[in-house]
Amino acid sequence: MNAAKKAAVLLSGGLDSAVTLFYAKREGYDCHCLAFDYGQRHAREIAMARRLAAEAGATLETVKLPFTWKGSSLVDDTLDLPRRRPLAEIRSGVPTTYVPARNTVFLSIAASFAEAIGARAIFIGAHQEDASGYPDCRKEYLDAFDAVLRLGTKAGLEGRLELAAPLIGMNKRAIIELGASLGVSFGHTWSCYEGGVRPCGTCDSCILRAKGFEEAGIVDPLREGYHAHR
Amino acid sequence: MNAAKKAAVLLSGGLDSAVTLFYAKREGYDCHCLAFDYGQRHAREIAMARRLAAEAGATLETVKLPFTWKGSSLVDDTLDLPRRRPLAEIRSGVPTTYVPARNTVFLSIAASFAEAIGARAIFIGAHQEDASGYPDCRKEYLDAFDAVLRLGTKAGLEGRLELAAPLIGMNKRAIIELGASLGVSFGHTWSCYEGGVRPCGTCDSCILRAKGFEEAGIVDPLREGYHAHR
Repeated sequence: MNAAKKAAVLLSGGLDSAVTLFYAKREGYDCHCLAFDYGQRHAREIAMARRLAAEAGATLETVKLPFTWKGSSLVDDTLDLPRRRPLAEIRSGVPTTYVPARNTVFLSIAASFAEAIGARAIFIGAHQEDASGYPDCRKEYLDAFDAVLRLGTKAGLEGRLELAAPLIGMNKRAIIELGASLGVSFGHTWSCYEGGVRPCGTCDSCILRAKGFEEAGIVDPLREGYHAHR
Repeated sequence: MNAAKKAAVLLSGGLDSAVTLFYAKREGYDCHCLAFDYGQRHAREIAMARRLAAEAGATLETVKLPFTWKGSSLVDDTLDLPRRRPLAEIRSGVPTTYVPARNTVFLSIAASFAEAIGARAIFIGAHQEDASGYPDCRKEYLDAFDAVLRLGTKAGLEGRLELAAPLIGMNKRAIIELGASLGVSFGHTWSCYEGGVRPCGTCDSCILRAKGFEEAGIVDPLREGYHAHR
């Protein structure tokens, strides 16, 4: 590994960002992770992120945002999470779990962090397939943010900083297969929108995760949890 | 004024953002301002922003960023501010006062705020002329961020949120003339990179401000300060 080739990695503790971290590591990057505390329903994701970063030999900084988003069922306990939705419904429209401009806020702070530490790339685990209708997970959006980096930062202008979204064209099955080949501890990733002891099995995120593992023919180490709640 | 037409306005307490606020107000927007506390050398800008917002009948929220940028002479007291630079030098290259990805962080938080309050536009006072070589003040950059808004937020996708940079093509003289026509209290705006009782008169920002007022043939209410330090 070339220690001079640094990357900033957005690490949520979920499956996609975990695979992205191990992918960046395999590509030879010295990885510096950022996790965000923004009043999400549970702190479990961040605990997972800490463990995953340690497993990848990466650093982790937790950034507590100075505001809590309103109007999203992901952060507002008074709103119900969508449950047991058919795939076709999950894949159409923007769900109530949408958090306004979330990835833009995360990526902009990562841009500043990346420039400060001299990172060459910012890695994000967004993917278009199964993106549940989040506008800020689409390739068109990520291309626009890459342009922001290249035009709006000194490092980007000088060709030293770019956005990397290696999972963007992959579906959940392919992401899980890639993660397995990279040795990701899936048992240390958390996808559920709730923060119980076990995944709820009924939110959009649990449904997409279960489908991905099923299609990949891999057993999810957390799968007991799904059965317990079904 | 149509109270339903809201705008989020980035208000630093400087001259450009003050003129932008009063411009947005004249355009009929119900203005909601954001000021950022990010460890800048002084808190004077924020006090100015509070007064300007009140004068414009706008609300103001101060957001304290969860990090302090390193490596910029604007926020790091151990670094010297550039002094008495000729205009040609001010206008070439990225100065040490550059703060990594600053406008991207500000705009991304404004995007989230705007979407949450149902604002139709985000106003920023950036301008290319006299922009002191900041990459994130150029039109190409702002166009890229506008694309991020339109592609990466629910409101933007639905055509309900856009970036407005009304000063982008103007020089300091034109901005001051516009501000005068809008009744902006220039004495309540602060441009100096330092936070003394009076402007230093020698930093890039003071030099550009003095030149703008001189060309506009308007007396800067703060100008005594320049003389005191020259």
